[in-house]
Parts: sequence; C-alpha cells; structure tokens
Amino acid sequence: MAQERRKGRTLGFIPTMGALHPGHLSLVRAARRENDRVAVSIFVNPLQFGPSEDFRRYPRPAARDRRLLEQEKTDYLFLPSPRAVYPAGFQTTVEPGAMAEGLCGRFRPGHFKGVTTVVARLFLLAAPDRAYFGAKDFQQAKILGRMVRDLGFNLKMRILPIVREADGLAMSSRNAYLTAEERRRALGFSQALALARRRMGEGGQNLAALKRVLVSYLIRQGIQVQYVEWADPETLEPLKASRPRMLLALAGYVGKTRLIDNAIITAFRGRKK
Amino acid sequence: MAQERRKGRTLGFIPTMGALHPGHLSLVRAARRENDRVAVSIFVNPLQFGPSEDFRRYPRPAARDRRLLEQEKTDYLFLPSPRAVYPAGFQTTVEPGAMAEGLCGRFRPGHFKGVTTVVARLFLLAAPDRAYFGAKDFQQAKILGRMVRDLGFNLKMRILPIVREADGLAMSSRNAYLTAEERRRALGFSQALALARRRMGEGGQNLAALKRVLVSYLIRQGIQVQYVEWADPETLEPLKASRPRMLLALAGYVGKTRLIDNAIITAFRGRKK
Repeated sequence: MAQERRKGRTLGFIPTMGALHPGHLSLVRAARRENDRVAVSIFVNPLQFGPSEDFRRYPRPAARDRRLLEQEKTDYLFLPSPRAVYPAGFQTTVEPGAMAEGLCGRFRPGHFKGVTTVVARLFLLAAPDRAYFGAKDFQQAKILGRMVRDLGFNLKMRILPIVREADGLAMSSRNAYLTAEERRRALGFSQALALARRRMGEGGQNLAALKRVLVSYLIRQGIQVQYVEWADPETLEPLKASRPRMLLALAGYVGKTRLIDNAIITAFRGRKK
Repeated sequence: MAQERRKGRTLGFIPTMGALHPGHLSLVRAARRENDRVAVSIFVNPLQFGPSEDFRRYPRPAARDRRLLEQEKTDYLFLPSPRAVYPAGFQTTVEPGAMAEGLCGRFRPGHFKGVTTVVARLFLLAAPDRAYFGAKDFQQAKILGRMVRDLGFNLKMRILPIVREADGLAMSSRNAYLTAEERRRALGFSQALALARRRMGEGGQNLAALKRVLVSYLIRQGIQVQYVEWADPETLEPLKASRPRMLLALAGYVGKTRLIDNAIITAFRGRKK
C-alpha cells in the first residue's frame, strides 16, 4: 500500500476475521466515505483464540465475504496465510497493558495480546491512514487505540457504533452458532442494556445495585453471565460510583456460544450516587 | 521522515543512547554511504534499565555528541523527551521471545523488552529504510532483527562489526566508568575471545571444556564473570557441540561496571567434537 501513499492517496483499512455482517460493512462504508482507497483483511487469527475456544469452528464463508466486499467496492482484500502473518521462528509479540486485564481479558487470557500482535503486524503491512473498528468489541478497540498512541502508529483510529438486528441483538459472526431458541435468549443482552439506560435515565442508581438487577435479569433470560461491568470508557477501569458517561459491558454464554454487548450509558444529570 | 520517503529518498537510522564513540560513528558512516539521508536518535531509555542499574549515571555528554554527529554530516538528530517516547498512560510493550531469555536476558530481566519497545516506537517515528546496530550488542541486534521480521517492519537491519581500541577492548559508552586499573583488567574479555579463537582454530575442542578454561582466564584477569556462552548466532540457542560458526558471548563485572563482548568463532574444519 506504500505506493498509494506515495501518490498522496489515503487508505482506510478494516482488519476482520471474515464471516462479514452488516456491522463490518458499516465499517467498509465509512472507510469508503473517508478515504481514496479501502483495504480489508480477512484472517482468522489463531493467536487470539484460547486452546478451548472456537478457532476451528469459527465460520469462514470465503466466497460470500468476497462477494460482499466486491459489492462495497473494496479496493484491496488481504487474505494472508498464517505463515505470511507469523513467519517461521515467530516470537515477538505486542503486549497490551492494564486495559487488557479486566472485562473480557479476565476470561480470555492472552486474547488481547493476540489481537494487538496481529493488528500491529497488519498495520505495518497495510500502512493505512485510518483504521476502522466496531464498538461491539469496545475493549479491543480501546486497547488498539492505546497501542496506536503508545507505539506511535501514524494512523487515525475510527470506532463506529454497534450495528444491531431489528430486535436489538448486536451483530456478531458468532450469532451464526445460535439455535432459534438461543437466538431468543440472546436478546437478553440488549434488553439488559436498555433496562440499565432506563434506570440511569430515571435519576441514577447505585451502580452495584443496578449490576445485581442486570445479572438477575440476564440469568432469567437464560444467559450464563460472565460479567456485568461498569467501566471508564477511556481507561476501562472499573467504576464504583456513577459518572456522566460510563461503559456498561456484558458477557455471557448462551448455550455454548459466548456473546458480548455493551453501551455507553449517560447518567441522569444533577445527581450522583 | 515520511516526506523524505515520498520524495524517493532513502533514510538510514541509528538509534543510540548517546555517549557516542567510534563504534557508533562507524554506524553513522555506513548509513551515510548507503542512504540519501541519515538520522540518529539519542535517548537514554529508562525502560531498558533495571532498578539497580546505571540509568541515572549513564553518561550524557550532549554537546560532544552533537558535535560528533555534525562532523559526520548527520541530517536528522532526534532528542526525544521521555514523555514524547512514552505518552501519558503508556502501557503497550513489544515483547521479544525465546531469544531474549538466555545470555544477558538471564541477568537483566525486562531489559530486552525495553529495547524492543523503544526501538519499535523509534522505527515507527523515523520510518527508515535501513537501521544500523553494532555487533557488540549482538543479542540485542538479533532480537531486533527478529522483531523486524515478526512484526513486518519495512526496513533492512544492518549489523556492523565491533569497533575495538588498539589493545582490543571493545568500544562501549560504559568504558568511561573504568579506572585505569579496571581498564587493564577489562582487556581480559577480548583476550579470552582471542584465546578461544586460537584453541578452536587449532583443531576444535570440547565446548564445555573450553568454557571452563575461559571462565578461569577471565577470573584470573580480575573479572567477575556473569556468563561465558556458546550459542547459535541466528537463534541464540546455547550450543553443546561444536559447529562451523558459533557465537561466543561473554559478560561480567570489572569493579562496578558490567561489560560484555563477543565474537563469531569458526571451528577448525573437518572435525567435530
């Protein structure tokens, strides 16, 4: 891509693991609007999966992904082999810091290190002017933004809103794992976020108390809760007391499928608890 | 430096901690020969010093360094502040792998992680076509070469030979710490390398036996030995049996000053032990 830059053209880049859905395509469209050229990579990155996670069965609908990207007029599609990404003797990693310890980091040891390492490598390969990530993986996007600042990548991070199904379910490649019944249960996540927003809007509430309400709610919907956390949207540090702007992040299993969701919750003004 | 690249000019880059000596200047001259522009950074990197190491007293002869670089017609001199290198909230590091575990890595925990992190950051800042390192810090140079391949930095690593004083002492900014008497003792390192080269040239020798000879030799010269190691020059894995081409690496204290030295030793052909 260096030749595009030499020609003064800007490049927008969207690193993905494929199994593209409207969330990914919203990133491609944003990149299309903001750059002269758009590059997408599809690479199911073994380094970011734990040994008991779904690396092998992760969906890989290659022909469909390709067709969708052609429709979106993607200029460059990278489909690197694992050997191209991780050369023989590979051993250097990019390690995130404290921001990778909480939330999903607590349940997926090594996951974010796999993400920062592969994205650093892809950034060096693609040399984009802007890189696009979805807010669905909020912690990932913030860790990568931190990496960009810490190591000094010369690009702008763009984090775009979560794209949801009509009924509220956050788009995810892993939704494909769900049975019809699990699909109904999975709605609990977005409903819990709506419930939290309502409660906070009604005049704020003790975060710990509301967390207990949300955990109960998710359990009643048939979700095996991994975490319900209030966090600072920039540092991802856990919050004990209400703030004007908070991240509420949820994770849990529906059957064998691990799903996450999140929202930025604005607390009722003029009152703090 | 991106503008130089856009103009089709090549950039050679030498990251240093200052206290420049003829070893550094040999790198600047090589960069001068091989590139249109030369950039040198001087940054005493806190991240690569252990808590009990010499970060505070490391020599910082700023005016002299500047004069030397002007004499060598350096085009760009970077003198970043710690805050510029490590922004507020900094937490992302570049972690070397197995190559950082042996040799100096065993005695300086975290040192090479400090080196890979700062050099990755400086590479992203300077965006050089070629980067120059001295073979004196052989393990460092090889770890950085591995980093360049693993993360895909678009530059060529150049490792230049150790520059020595007339009597054999390897040039080092830390030689400035030595008293006249310590300076004499420090000659033990290069003499031990010469002894090893002689013995191996005479028909090879059991590596473990020769190591014992070298350790004794260094101790007799008044050096407090940290390690004497035979290693594969590419992977840095320790060697138990002789090979045609081997790294012999030495480290130890002369008084309170830690010094290192090394050589590539070629074994006598036609015989293996």
